[in-house]
Amino acid sequence: MKLILLSGGSGKRLWPLSNDARSKQFLRVLEGPGGRMESMVERVWRQLGESGVRESAYIATGQAQEELLRAHVGPEVPLIVEPCRRDTFPAIALSAVYLYSIVGVSLEETVAVLPVDPYVEDEFFRRVGELEAVIRRTGCDMALMGVTPTYPSAKYGYIVPEPDAAQDAADAEAVDGLRDRRLPEGMSAEKRNASEGASALPEQLARFAVPGTGDGASRRVRRFTEKPDETTATALIAEGALWNCGVFAFKLGYLIQLLIDRGLPIHYDGLCEQYERLAKTSFDYEVVEQASHIEALRYDGYWKDLGTWNTLTEEMKTPLLGEGRTTEDCRNTHVLNELGIPIMVLGLSDVVVAASPDGILVADKAASPRIKEALRDDERRPMYEERRWGHYLVLDQMRHDDGTSAITKRVCLAAGRNFSYHYHTDRSEVWTVLGGRGEMILDGASRILQAGDVAIIPARAAHTLRAHTEMQLIEVQRGVRLVEEDIVRLGKEWSTITQI
Amino acid sequence: MKLILLSGGSGKRLWPLSNDARSKQFLRVLEGPGGRMESMVERVWRQLGESGVRESAYIATGQAQEELLRAHVGPEVPLIVEPCRRDTFPAIALSAVYLYSIVGVSLEETVAVLPVDPYVEDEFFRRVGELEAVIRRTGCDMALMGVTPTYPSAKYGYIVPEPDAAQDAADAEAVDGLRDRRLPEGMSAEKRNASEGASALPEQLARFAVPGTGDGASRRVRRFTEKPDETTATALIAEGALWNCGVFAFKLGYLIQLLIDRGLPIHYDGLCEQYERLAKTSFDYEVVEQASHIEALRYDGYWKDLGTWNTLTEEMKTPLLGEGRTTEDCRNTHVLNELGIPIMVLGLSDVVVAASPDGILVADKAASPRIKEALRDDERRPMYEERRWGHYLVLDQMRHDDGTSAITKRVCLAAGRNFSYHYHTDRSEVWTVLGGRGEMILDGASRILQAGDVAIIPARAAHTLRAHTEMQLIEVQRGVRLVEEDIVRLGKEWSTITQI
Repeated sequence: MKLILLSGGSGKRLWPLSNDARSKQFLRVLEGPGGRMESMVERVWRQLGESGVRESAYIATGQAQEELLRAHVGPEVPLIVEPCRRDTFPAIALSAVYLYSIVGVSLEETVAVLPVDPYVEDEFFRRVGELEAVIRRTGCDMALMGVTPTYPSAKYGYIVPEPDAAQDAADAEAVDGLRDRRLPEGMSAEKRNASEGASALPEQLARFAVPGTGDGASRRVRRFTEKPDETTATALIAEGALWNCGVFAFKLGYLIQLLIDRGLPIHYDGLCEQYERLAKTSFDYEVVEQASHIEALRYDGYWKDLGTWNTLTEEMKTPLLGEGRTTEDCRNTHVLNELGIPIMVLGLSDVVVAASPDGILVADKAASPRIKEALRDDERRPMYEERRWGHYLVLDQMRHDDGTSAITKRVCLAAGRNFSYHYHTDRSEVWTVLGGRGEMILDGASRILQAGDVAIIPARAAHTLRAHTEMQLIEVQRGVRLVEEDIVRLGKEWSTITQI
Repeated sequence: MKLILLSGGSGKRLWPLSNDARSKQFLRVLEGPGGRMESMVERVWRQLGESGVRESAYIATGQAQEELLRAHVGPEVPLIVEPCRRDTFPAIALSAVYLYSIVGVSLEETVAVLPVDPYVEDEFFRRVGELEAVIRRTGCDMALMGVTPTYPSAKYGYIVPEPDAAQDAADAEAVDGLRDRRLPEGMSAEKRNASEGASALPEQLARFAVPGTGDGASRRVRRFTEKPDETTATALIAEGALWNCGVFAFKLGYLIQLLIDRGLPIHYDGLCEQYERLAKTSFDYEVVEQASHIEALRYDGYWKDLGTWNTLTEEMKTPLLGEGRTTEDCRNTHVLNELGIPIMVLGLSDVVVAASPDGILVADKAASPRIKEALRDDERRPMYEERRWGHYLVLDQMRHDDGTSAITKRVCLAAGRNFSYHYHTDRSEVWTVLGGRGEMILDGASRILQAGDVAIIPARAAHTLRAHTEMQLIEVQRGVRLVEEDIVRLGKEWSTITQI
């Protein structure tokens, strides 16, 4: 079985801590083992390791997140990087083609696709592993995982199963069939497991041993209902409906055949070439809704979508991240402060205050999901970005009457890292080094830079910097067009730069 | 009559918009004529002009506010500047001595002292003018103004008058006395006014014409009660008590005699020399409480202490100052944003959000007066200061492991203004000019600086800059001790600097 974790979406529902350059899965707001703060993607990657399935996992993402993912889960993380952003159908198709044509995965192997940031117990990932057995047992096109609803939420999608009786009978039959087919007479599940190495089968069988309880067996899916009202949701739950948590599994061959049927390339390079022309459509729409036989496996454990401030803060151990204070009469109030100045909250309960260089949110928790609408017309540049080489923070932006603009940044270059060797056509830069030591190359000439040094970089002058020890510098950009895209890269790795 | 406006106190009750460098009277949050935003001190100075008494007004303040006061009410404002900060007794004593020994005011002249920032109608200042007549009429040591309470507030001081009956009789007597003494038979108040020029007398008399209503006449003060509980306040109001609004008048000779009695100098230079050794005691404690005969004059008009966020925001015409947005369901919520990033408020009512480079306050309005306690241990440098030459904003502060620190500021130097010619012993500075044009002198050498230029200023190098057009620059300071006090000034005015 292979796992594909989808790491996408810029999402403004956790503004101002999430922005176009930093999606919510990268926010380090959760408390991990030993009290270390971890992001959602770090947490899931750790859980995959603890569940023993990390070796079969890949992360599908866009170029914008490549550096950040390596920073969060390690430089060796296997990434499947889209040439440009599309939607989930192209992304999953590209991943399938990558597994088939580059990794050489068998068409018979099961592939499970899941979000990169579900907030769940480890059990969740073990349950994902069971989808393989569901496909094998039922011969379905696709096996989904559904979360047992805990309340009639109007914000989730529901997976509605076929009516109970028929399904229970089918379950019982399937279990009998499996027993007949799989276990040689007189061999216990444990023994078989020991003889075949790690497998989800014994646990699966243990669950199947109580068919009809609704806990172990999968159920055939009748239909899907997106975000019903609460009354409808209550009725759906009574029917046995489950929350759709975005986990689906299929045999690799199923999707490859589907691509062949549509005349799409099944080799990685070929699909990459056409990628930009693929329609922006979702996997749900293009594949799931077309499948004739879908099974859903129930997951009873803890699951939560930490996509909005009210749900995210419920999982925060501490009410205060960053500088600030809340008075004692503040109940259920959370402060997340990435600014260098204190936030004082007086006498307010059920409130979230989140501040970053992008802005400040002050919201009643119940109202916090509305931030996306409130920001509808907001088109600002991100003020903070993590990069492969470190990070930067925009301190100041000014526009002058003469048409020039200025941006002041504090830049942190990690020890041993370097910027690409590049130039800008429309801006000059001045670096004042605050701390650390490194080597600068400016139009081919090398120079050591350390605390107190100043480097002046005219427009069109090629430059790079490599940090021997972590460097902090203030960069003042001036020009008529100050955009991140104004960059011509001449080299990326230090070893190649020094050859130029 | 002379007016002394006390402009003091750093006050943290309007944090983060007020700080050690910018007291609340300088916040431009009120809407003045023509929709122009004005500060409390600008408003009062404008009202003094409209009431025709600005010519007799002086502002007593500390050195820290000197530049700011000139920026707000004009370079010609007559200031009485304390050599160092003490309390109200030394400040008022210095002002009295200044009027006596420098300005040459007669000992018979009345001096009225008032805060620089009462939020009142113009009528208030006319009423202050009437205190002179009260002193003349009653021969009291001191005449105060008291505000008619509108509710039993527990946060004000109360002026408690002598019981009604006796006072009413005294009033009637006094009025009769005044009539006898002042008005030649057959001459109406209006005529007398016309023959003598502007005077408060006719209106005074008009009020005296209805003695016992408590509206016109002054009442002898029995005692003072500071911040009583609400029950006590209710009883006090029934007794005819008034709110103490910090306005008191006396004959200049009264205070000068008091200084002589205490062996204090009555000449300006002499008192300045001893100033640092004067006790930090209040005028209330040292003078008012010792006076044997105090009269209080009732003021019935609008008066408000805009000292806390809940009272200040009540007078704000707009719910949003600066960048940001509040959702439609926010009721009675105010945002004051001096940061360059947006503040979004979702679904919160009766809340004030105030943000400056010093920090961010998010408070239930009723809880907002508690900010002072919440900040008790806070000892941060001001991040924004207005100066004689312009203003600066701290963008970033960093401390490094090697003991050095760095501060990055954006500095705005107004056209025609210059820094003093100075040096720093413990820090270097790098200026990157973002906009404007000016002349720099560095260790005696002159150089033109304009947008894009970089100037490197080592520690101990004397430097100054004069702006031909308004200049914006980024200043990066580096050193082991980065404090505003590390400055040795060699010259202040450009004409003298160029002689050095």
